[in-house]
Amino acid sequence: MATESLNRPLAACEAGSIVKPALCHCLTSARQGIHETAWAVTNQELPVTKDFAWSVKKYTLSGGRQAGVEVIEVDNGCLRMLVVPTRGMSILRVESGDVRLGWDSPVKEVVHPQFIHLDSRGGLGWLEGFNEWLVRCGLEWAGHPGKDQFRNNVGDEVEMDLTLHGKIGNIPASEVEVVIEAGPPPRIIIRGLVEERMFYGPQLSLWTSISTEIGSNTFRVEDAVTNLGAHDQEFQIIYHANFGPPLLGAGAHFLGAVERVTPFNARAAETLADFAAYTGPQPGFIEQVYCLRPLADAAGQGLILLQNAAGNRAVSLAFPVEQLPYVTLWKNLAAAAEGYVTGLEPGTGFPATRRRERAANRVPKLKAGETRHFSLSVAIHVDSAAVVAVTERVRSIQGDRPLLLDAAPLP
Amino acid sequence: MATESLNRPLAACEAGSIVKPALCHCLTSARQGIHETAWAVTNQELPVTKDFAWSVKKYTLSGGRQAGVEVIEVDNGCLRMLVVPTRGMSILRVESGDVRLGWDSPVKEVVHPQFIHLDSRGGLGWLEGFNEWLVRCGLEWAGHPGKDQFRNNVGDEVEMDLTLHGKIGNIPASEVEVVIEAGPPPRIIIRGLVEERMFYGPQLSLWTSISTEIGSNTFRVEDAVTNLGAHDQEFQIIYHANFGPPLLGAGAHFLGAVERVTPFNARAAETLADFAAYTGPQPGFIEQVYCLRPLADAAGQGLILLQNAAGNRAVSLAFPVEQLPYVTLWKNLAAAAEGYVTGLEPGTGFPATRRRERAANRVPKLKAGETRHFSLSVAIHVDSAAVVAVTERVRSIQGDRPLLLDAAPLP
Amino acid sequence: MATESLNRPLAACEAGSIVKPALCHCLTSARQGIHETAWAVTNQELPVTKDFAWSVKKYTLSGGRQAGVEVIEVDNGCLRMLVVPTRGMSILRVESGDVRLGWDSPVKEVVHPQFIHLDSRGGLGWLEGFNEWLVRCGLEWAGHPGKDQFRNNVGDEVEMDLTLHGKIGNIPASEVEVVIEAGPPPRIIIRGLVEERMFYGPQLSLWTSISTEIGSNTFRVEDAVTNLGAHDQEFQIIYHANFGPPLLGAGAHFLGAVERVTPFNARAAETLADFAAYTGPQPGFIEQVYCLRPLADAAGQGLILLQNAAGNRAVSLAFPVEQLPYVTLWKNLAAAAEGYVTGLEPGTGFPATRRRERAANRVPKLKAGETRHFSLSVAIHVDSAAVVAVTERVRSIQGDRPLLLDAAPLP
Repeated sequence: MATESLNRPLAACEAGSIVKPALCHCLTSARQGIHETAWAVTNQELPVTKDFAWSVKKYTLSGGRQAGVEVIEVDNGCLRMLVVPTRGMSILRVESGDVRLGWDSPVKEVVHPQFIHLDSRGGLGWLEGFNEWLVRCGLEWAGHPGKDQFRNNVGDEVEMDLTLHGKIGNIPASEVEVVIEAGPPPRIIIRGLVEERMFYGPQLSLWTSISTEIGSNTFRVEDAVTNLGAHDQEFQIIYHANFGPPLLGAGAHFLGAVERVTPFNARAAETLADFAAYTGPQPGFIEQVYCLRPLADAAGQGLILLQNAAGNRAVSLAFPVEQLPYVTLWKNLAAAAEGYVTGLEPGTGFPATRRRERAANRVPKLKAGETRHFSLSVAIHVDSAAVVAVTERVRSIQGDRPLLLDAAPLP
Repeated sequence: MATESLNRPLAACEAGSIVKPALCHCLTSARQGIHETAWAVTNQELPVTKDFAWSVKKYTLSGGRQAGVEVIEVDNGCLRMLVVPTRGMSILRVESGDVRLGWDSPVKEVVHPQFIHLDSRGGLGWLEGFNEWLVRCGLEWAGHPGKDQFRNNVGDEVEMDLTLHGKIGNIPASEVEVVIEAGPPPRIIIRGLVEERMFYGPQLSLWTSISTEIGSNTFRVEDAVTNLGAHDQEFQIIYHANFGPPLLGAGAHFLGAVERVTPFNARAAETLADFAAYTGPQPGFIEQVYCLRPLADAAGQGLILLQNAAGNRAVSLAFPVEQLPYVTLWKNLAAAAEGYVTGLEPGTGFPATRRRERAANRVPKLKAGETRHFSLSVAIHVDSAAVVAVTERVRSIQGDRPLLLDAAPLP
Repeated sequence: MATESLNRPLAACEAGSIVKPALCHCLTSARQGIHETAWAVTNQELPVTKDFAWSVKKYTLSGGRQAGVEVIEVDNGCLRMLVVPTRGMSILRVESGDVRLGWDSPVKEVVHPQFIHLDSRGGLGWLEGFNEWLVRCGLEWAGHPGKDQFRNNVGDEVEMDLTLHGKIGNIPASEVEVVIEAGPPPRIIIRGLVEERMFYGPQLSLWTSISTEIGSNTFRVEDAVTNLGAHDQEFQIIYHANFGPPLLGAGAHFLGAVERVTPFNARAAETLADFAAYTGPQPGFIEQVYCLRPLADAAGQGLILLQNAAGNRAVSLAFPVEQLPYVTLWKNLAAAAEGYVTGLEPGTGFPATRRRERAANRVPKLKAGETRHFSLSVAIHVDSAAVVAVTERVRSIQGDRPLLLDAAPLP
């Protein structure tokens, strides 16, 4: 808490990592006592470019379970992105021309965390707010609900119920700031701090920086996860990126530089050969989940993508394989009304319960004070030539390394 | 969510079902981004009648656990009604002269859903906010807490804990609008949309229309429940209408056109013969619940009522028996401080756990896209002649059909 | 709820217990519909003294999980105190010169109850907001989570999960008022009502009065807990007062007039001889808890204190032993980042589960309508002479009564 009302120099600008900031503006600061419910800046006030009519706007939603939810709308002159500080700095939707990064969830409102009870429905309460393009699962745990041990205040090992996909997606950001870099190239950056801290529990923080060059069809999500506690701390993070129509449809397919594909369960094993292909909506479809080990290029980057049936639209995700060595491919090809959607999900592990993930050595630890960095570079490809080019890049990473298909589900 | 700020033509007015709207005003719209925290209209600004000083006011409560709760106060010149959009369009209280539809709950504040944890106290968290005259129980489930099966995201049948009376009473309305019909007769209508939707779960919506003719001692609640999902969906709804003093008191009694009365449990069976009679408050009283099968008139309407000891005040409820074929009579004749109250509760079933209700074929289903309509017509009778008239109507529906009393509790 | 907007005479002023009020100001009233998000009064507007620049300010926090939390900052010209109506009238922090009543919790924000789920983490959700100097545990139950019986709506004895330290610390105050007494001596009083009421459950209310003489280094917390129900009602209250550096540190020690010390568990038994001594932070430290029976002076007051290593700073707590016959001494000498802290906790019992406390006859009952009063008189001692004086007072209460050390843990 803080009582200072001055809009002071920002962490981002102070830190010196920003190139020639034309603007540093703090929208929310728990520490400094800053909070603006509405705000905007455009190329009119800050003419960093002659070529694009860009803008950043903040507003607050109303009605139903979205009352009080804050949204930052970034328009870089080419793509438009909605960031939701109130829901852990998730990205609700990105649009560029006729390409949409997002999907049609049955959840229509942007649900305020005050209405989410993660424990409800046997630990599936997270699903009551699930409609983002990109939501982080984590940080103390991610994946399926289930029982796991922890050490309580009197030093005993006791059992607790983990809930689906953890808490970070339902914690409001404590610090939110907008930075405009003059460039060239000029760039818009939204930074946010989300803290998952408690007494007798984890003390994890997430600083995210969501940035896009003005006029580009690309953006980056760069996250720093820090253990603020005094002891080693397990953590998990899965970037749950979800796509529906028009990109997704019968004939769309997944492509990635991948070493190995393992079905998550027996159901997924039955259709393993078709793991990369999509049908149209199938009423009554039960989710199929595939566990992928991505390959990296010489710079350590993995590359996966989803392309449409016509082969003239695609979205690609690049990420550091050392930090995100697992990719979950989630296919939920259900009726449109139920959420026809696929997830491409780089993570520190797969979405089994933390107990199972730990047994498979997929739950990393942070030492006291340690920070780990993650990034997602997202590109939108809007014609056949661009789609061909990015698929070539995938194939060149794959090279002659074979793609292994495991017949048996994940142990 | 929506960013449009224009107060556009309303669903109600657009739909054409409203007769000569003199006013259509949207108070809250999640879709259109509309939200007014305070608003009012009176006969001064909108002189639709010369005979009554009517008004509609919206305001927001403060303090304790009611901070941020929105209330719409309708005064039709004869009766005054408080509708609570924040609590699922419940009706907190209706007053007309010395008649009150409502009761003295130990819960004094109008509790915001953010403070309600339905899972708490073994699934009885709903009781922390229970003080309305009319609250709907439902929609995915109603009735007592208990375990029930559902199918989870991986297609497995798993168990979840159902909570008392479901979620709909603690979900804020997404759309709220006020319509004034010019008439004659002129009429005030409050409409609201409450959505109970999630991913991998039910997609149920409730559109309610609460209307009253200006100057009348009657009002109607007309609800449309729709399954927005792609599959058949079970649902339950119970209209939990609760009455305390001065209508309720020693010598008050229940009357209804009823085919059969079954005690809910052994305790209720002991006092079956007196099911329709009320004593004054009895400290330590444990609730008695009776399960009634209502009879319908030629138009399909059932009619039940509560009348005071003097026989000169009564409130009657009429409802379509085909849609609401069960009535629960709840007697909680406890000390005044504990909540001396009786509930008259037409519903799609009785308030046993959903598992028991399903076994008894009392859990209806909605097909994909199907809407079912429910209505309650409420009349306040303020002198002996009116009370005699409405009791005569009940008796004429009953005709010579005997009232059966089951000695054994509900199986 | 209420619709009146008038800032009416206050309960405190009406009650006549206030001496010459120079000001009565209502900040929040659920009953009267009053709510001020920001407000201030200082000696400038209300010159009750020439000697001190006192002030009372109310403001609202922003950002993260503290959005909407209201704080009242009292500066009596000598000490500064932060009261948090949104969190059950807890006292976040008190500062006087270089003395701080408070600690460095890993929880940095003042968490709004809307983000607290008491049931989470096996009933330890309370810890997600725990960072106050003084937080009350109670009222229906306090102490460790665990199962206990209660009687439900149909009169059956059923089991529920009690959560750590109960609900009162996460319920917003329904009524909040500021009173300035002209004196002499002039005095600042913050009063608040917190209600823990539900249907088919307890109806407990807490009226607290937090007062300080202008210019003094002392303050008082006076609480009245009332059973508003019609039946006997169990309740528990523990005043969880927590101290970190600079008062706490290697060489600091606890002192109290105490009859008997019992280790809470086997771990505490191992270090019983050192129960009153403090080391510096020890990474990996597991809490040690000691159960103390305080002795009273001739006026019935117990006296305990914490003094720093140098012996020139101390904070003492005086309280009526008849009402608060138990003191818990909690030592959590963990790494600074994890919360290096000790709690001095007068209460109606110890923090075992209510079931265990009841078995040991440490769960009091209130009759219908009964009120029980509690008080804590807090003094800050800022030089060696003052510390010596207060330690002498402790020793004089102890007299020649021996301090018994139980080798065996609490049964």
